[in-house]
Amino acid sequence: MALRNKKTAILLVICQIVFIILFGVFVDYAPDADARHPGNSHDQNGTDHENNSLKMYYPMFQDVHVMIFVGFGFLMTFLRRYGFGAVGLNFLLAAFVIQWSLLVQAFFEVGQHGGGRFEIDVTTMLTSDFACAAVLISFGSLLGKASPIQLITMALIEIVIFTINEHIGVGLFSAVDVGGSMYVHAFGAYYGLAVARVLYKNSHKENPKEESNYHSDLFAMIGTIFLWMYWPSFNSALAPADDQHRAVLNTYLALAACCVVTFAISSLTDAKGHWDMVHIQNATLAGGVAVGTSADMMLHPFGALMVGSVAGMISTLGYKYLTPFMANRLKIHDTCGVHNLHGMPGVMAGVIGAIMAGIASTQEYEYEDIHEVFSLVQPGIGRSAMAQGAYQALALAVTLVFAIVTGALTGLLLRLKIFDQPEGGMIHDDAAWWGTPEDFTVEVVNGNKSAKGLMTEMEDK
Amino acid sequence: MALRNKKTAILLVICQIVFIILFGVFVDYAPDADARHPGNSHDQNGTDHENNSLKMYYPMFQDVHVMIFVGFGFLMTFLRRYGFGAVGLNFLLAAFVIQWSLLVQAFFEVGQHGGGRFEIDVTTMLTSDFACAAVLISFGSLLGKASPIQLITMALIEIVIFTINEHIGVGLFSAVDVGGSMYVHAFGAYYGLAVARVLYKNSHKENPKEESNYHSDLFAMIGTIFLWMYWPSFNSALAPADDQHRAVLNTYLALAACCVVTFAISSLTDAKGHWDMVHIQNATLAGGVAVGTSADMMLHPFGALMVGSVAGMISTLGYKYLTPFMANRLKIHDTCGVHNLHGMPGVMAGVIGAIMAGIASTQEYEYEDIHEVFSLVQPGIGRSAMAQGAYQALALAVTLVFAIVTGALTGLLLRLKIFDQPEGGMIHDDAAWWGTPEDFTVEVVNGNKSAKGLMTEMEDK
Amino acid sequence: MALRNKKTAILLVICQIVFIILFGVFVDYAPDADARHPGNSHDQNGTDHENNSLKMYYPMFQDVHVMIFVGFGFLMTFLRRYGFGAVGLNFLLAAFVIQWSLLVQAFFEVGQHGGGRFEIDVTTMLTSDFACAAVLISFGSLLGKASPIQLITMALIEIVIFTINEHIGVGLFSAVDVGGSMYVHAFGAYYGLAVARVLYKNSHKENPKEESNYHSDLFAMIGTIFLWMYWPSFNSALAPADDQHRAVLNTYLALAACCVVTFAISSLTDAKGHWDMVHIQNATLAGGVAVGTSADMMLHPFGALMVGSVAGMISTLGYKYLTPFMANRLKIHDTCGVHNLHGMPGVMAGVIGAIMAGIASTQEYEYEDIHEVFSLVQPGIGRSAMAQGAYQALALAVTLVFAIVTGALTGLLLRLKIFDQPEGGMIHDDAAWWGTPEDFTVEVVNGNKSAKGLMTEMEDK
Repeated sequence: MALRNKKTAILLVICQIVFIILFGVFVDYAPDADARHPGNSHDQNGTDHENNSLKMYYPMFQDVHVMIFVGFGFLMTFLRRYGFGAVGLNFLLAAFVIQWSLLVQAFFEVGQHGGGRFEIDVTTMLTSDFACAAVLISFGSLLGKASPIQLITMALIEIVIFTINEHIGVGLFSAVDVGGSMYVHAFGAYYGLAVARVLYKNSHKENPKEESNYHSDLFAMIGTIFLWMYWPSFNSALAPADDQHRAVLNTYLALAACCVVTFAISSLTDAKGHWDMVHIQNATLAGGVAVGTSADMMLHPFGALMVGSVAGMISTLGYKYLTPFMANRLKIHDTCGVHNLHGMPGVMAGVIGAIMAGIASTQEYEYEDIHEVFSLVQPGIGRSAMAQGAYQALALAVTLVFAIVTGALTGLLLRLKIFDQPEGGMIHDDAAWWGTPEDFTVEVVNGNKSAKGLMTEMEDK
Repeated sequence: MALRNKKTAILLVICQIVFIILFGVFVDYAPDADARHPGNSHDQNGTDHENNSLKMYYPMFQDVHVMIFVGFGFLMTFLRRYGFGAVGLNFLLAAFVIQWSLLVQAFFEVGQHGGGRFEIDVTTMLTSDFACAAVLISFGSLLGKASPIQLITMALIEIVIFTINEHIGVGLFSAVDVGGSMYVHAFGAYYGLAVARVLYKNSHKENPKEESNYHSDLFAMIGTIFLWMYWPSFNSALAPADDQHRAVLNTYLALAACCVVTFAISSLTDAKGHWDMVHIQNATLAGGVAVGTSADMMLHPFGALMVGSVAGMISTLGYKYLTPFMANRLKIHDTCGVHNLHGMPGVMAGVIGAIMAGIASTQEYEYEDIHEVFSLVQPGIGRSAMAQGAYQALALAVTLVFAIVTGALTGLLLRLKIFDQPEGGMIHDDAAWWGTPEDFTVEVVNGNKSAKGLMTEMEDK
Repeated sequence: MALRNKKTAILLVICQIVFIILFGVFVDYAPDADARHPGNSHDQNGTDHENNSLKMYYPMFQDVHVMIFVGFGFLMTFLRRYGFGAVGLNFLLAAFVIQWSLLVQAFFEVGQHGGGRFEIDVTTMLTSDFACAAVLISFGSLLGKASPIQLITMALIEIVIFTINEHIGVGLFSAVDVGGSMYVHAFGAYYGLAVARVLYKNSHKENPKEESNYHSDLFAMIGTIFLWMYWPSFNSALAPADDQHRAVLNTYLALAACCVVTFAISSLTDAKGHWDMVHIQNATLAGGVAVGTSADMMLHPFGALMVGSVAGMISTLGYKYLTPFMANRLKIHDTCGVHNLHGMPGVMAGVIGAIMAGIASTQEYEYEDIHEVFSLVQPGIGRSAMAQGAYQALALAVTLVFAIVTGALTGLLLRLKIFDQPEGGMIHDDAAWWGTPEDFTVEVVNGNKSAKGLMTEMEDK
């Protein structure tokens, strides 16, 4: 056990040292943050607070930052014996990915455009946080079932593939996705599910530790509510002017409708008509994913409400019927139900995005604005709206195939003994990795082992 | 029970469908968020991030959003067996009201100014969130005692009356209320108290489930602190320039003083000198309400501290002495003590606003600025300061009468059997509406029923 | 007991009344918030939302505000029986210090520049919140061991000394410290540690109530994560343009590296390789402190990562080895380990700041920009970079000496019987000061007393 955990620590130390070296070689400040940049000095009237890009993006960046660290972190604390792991590993993974993702972006940038260094500023902080989201979504499907070293290794691989996929979709196809519903949510979900499938063990199913308690459910609601509130920032942070304003409105409305419909469907599908906290914690957010690709398009308010409503319905039904089916029949055990919150709504977002792009017209967009939303579309000159719709669909398809294939391959790698996949009493249990306080007693799950024996077993590993 | 809960779900589905249709007919993007608006496109230099109204209002909007969903939601989790209901119903009601309030605003707008659609943008998101606050305050007085269907019906009615009242006060009387202390807080409180009075049952009194536990009190503090911190945004979000700056300062100072005084009075009124978490969770916020109407007026820093100090004192004394009196003698049972946090401080805010308006002079306001704060006041030409003060008082009086009368009528409606008012073991208990985890055991409150019998009773309903 | 608590309350009432009077005499709105200021009115095109300083600083102010009230408040809830005290006293102290700190600033301002009043606006709200941080850091070293009246008295004294020290460092030496790592963190830590040393009692050591439980550790993580996320705002809030942008980037990167290294060292120093929640809750933040003084300097991204990495290592090792040593050998019992989170990293920050200032050159800073970062440095004309480095070191040394000496003197004062230092069962226990719910039972810590006896003892005091 000690050795296993220290192996993880040594990997972290090595990575951190390598990160520092690579940052030294490849990364530097963007002009807006660089004291060497002439435009920044006082006397040239360059020190203009309002025009520094920081002011433009920072408030929304912080909203996204809260979603990543508080939102995802606390959302996953619902397990009654894995709260430290949820918020703690979320913290570690995100802090790790922030650095690694900047480096991978740097490799691509320097690789493509040659010489010089990758310049970071508040917008690359945003793209780094988006990359975190993909990894944390994958983590959600593996919550409680993967060792820290598996998760860190997965993060190292996933970020590379995530970045390649985004370059194909955005760079090659010019398929837009303002809220990252395809490139972040669908990618992260299907990649994670593929890993979960390959790592599947029978002990993942019907594990008595895979339960919440009353207060762990309340901790999870902290995550839910912060994700829900700040999602408009996630879907609009990098969009310009009216596109951003529209993305905020559409996301806000989609989430409001999604919340209402989730409550309705949760009750309607329960024998006693009770609400299920799993649905309220998760499916209420599906509207933010489902509207992500088309958030800056001309959905109109009623369209945003429709998207949110359908997403809430699909997501809740997914938690109710599809998750157990996938676990029992397909051996895909999805701890947080990311398929319902990020997978299906992400696909839905991609499809809606393709349709909205396909029907985009100069009736709905001022001539120059259509070009602003869909960079290559210029009716009569450049790409047609219909073609844009097709490229959007293509980007979605490539994302799904790419995520599933590379996720499965990653899973195969992570099954190697060296990655110490947890089993038995270690699953969904903080005792395996954390110093725990006195009230966190050992819990025997399989009857035939004494508490003492279990603890020793866990510690010996 | 199942039927009862599913009835609520069906109402939600119907409302959501109607909302979508009405949004399609009545609501569209404001120009700042509309891709069809010529001023928004790149080539006309219209895509100016800084000048889009989103940038001006969005950070404060998000602060208010946090107050509504985290602030109100977690503040009410103090009950040891109603945490899901507190944060969950708060979430549902607010998501519901966001939509409904936009529609009611649309009806008034389209009704008054004819043709076209109601245009939404970040400022209507703010007014919608303010409307949520009114409903959530009313919810506070009913916490644990009303069924979801009662609350949703109340929200449908309350928003219409809230909007009418605000139109009378702002439109007819030009009575200003920058922080909504009269139109939101006092209205929401007295409306809710009137409903609570009509719905009163003996089981509301001295219910052993109306208690906190150690951790539920800490969850509630999450709500308190977020409300306290972001209240300056609530009181200033829609004010311009220096008025906004002044409203922030006044609210910040009033809240600081209010917190200090609340701690003092809480201890002084306790036999052992102990602090009472109910006071700390609630009365510390009263300064934000009490300074709401006059926040953008020339209170001066010492005036803001005085307002906050008095509010903290009144509110704490209210919790200590008035709440039990109202419950025992007047049959007004006020679960969250909204009378102390929103009612009395709201009235105080209105009175201070009237006085400050009445004594406003060109000594204290640059000539044009007085006009900016009190839209109709133009000494020597338009309305006099004294007249403005009278109109402020009139708006307060109308608000109170309107809230109490319509609240009582709403209560009468909600007593109908079809609205399933909870009773007995269902009161202050999540088990009636929520799937609950294993550690949330059935609790017998009236001795003569077995736990099993109680549960069956609750489930049968 | 009752008397003791009421004495505190009476002190609060007196202070609040005095504060109101002093605000009336010494404090008024700054022009940007003053309706009498001609530039603010509509018709002179003065009402320009974008140019009011509120817009420039308010979002970051709110981030800092969240750090003070949610961050510090919840971080300290880790003790299983002192959660009310942690978040409650944090709330009271900060609300108290906000006012007192504005007054002390006013005394200095009016004293130095004569006549008129101290003008407050959003920037003084920021400096007030920074002052709170110093007091709350000192509070951290005393958590659970000091009476409220001791803490309030300490705050009254500490703010005066804090302000003097900052005037010496910034005013006299022109030693810069953008994130306040010397003037706020190191000062607050060493001042608090000196107080803790003088107040030391044997019962502070190995107290069975100085423990967390599973959920108190999760509440503490709320504080940790909010501090971690918003720290870039703390370190950059008052810096201009590119300096601010750079401070954000450096802090963001330092914190990311610090988090990763903390996880690694925490595991490597544990026999079982387990992570220790104390380290994760605290040492992950040390990077924000350590980079504070040099955050706006040209550290470059790799430099920021290095600073964060070293800080995480030092801080974790401090919690592991130094804190027990200090408690056992030096009789310095440091409940929250502020020496590891604010003390050593604060000193490290000062040293790095001095080095970075000493090597600052016109290669690394555009000529005018070096002047912007280090106000007096103007190579060839004014102060040299090397001299600036020396002044930075001097400011650090003065801060440390000043903090320790005045802290010890403060501690001597607070030992007077009138300040009611808690002992025995009162230590680390909310029961001494708070009304507590039923599930918070009396806990006997020294075996030879009945629960009943203990409670009576605590109540009698």
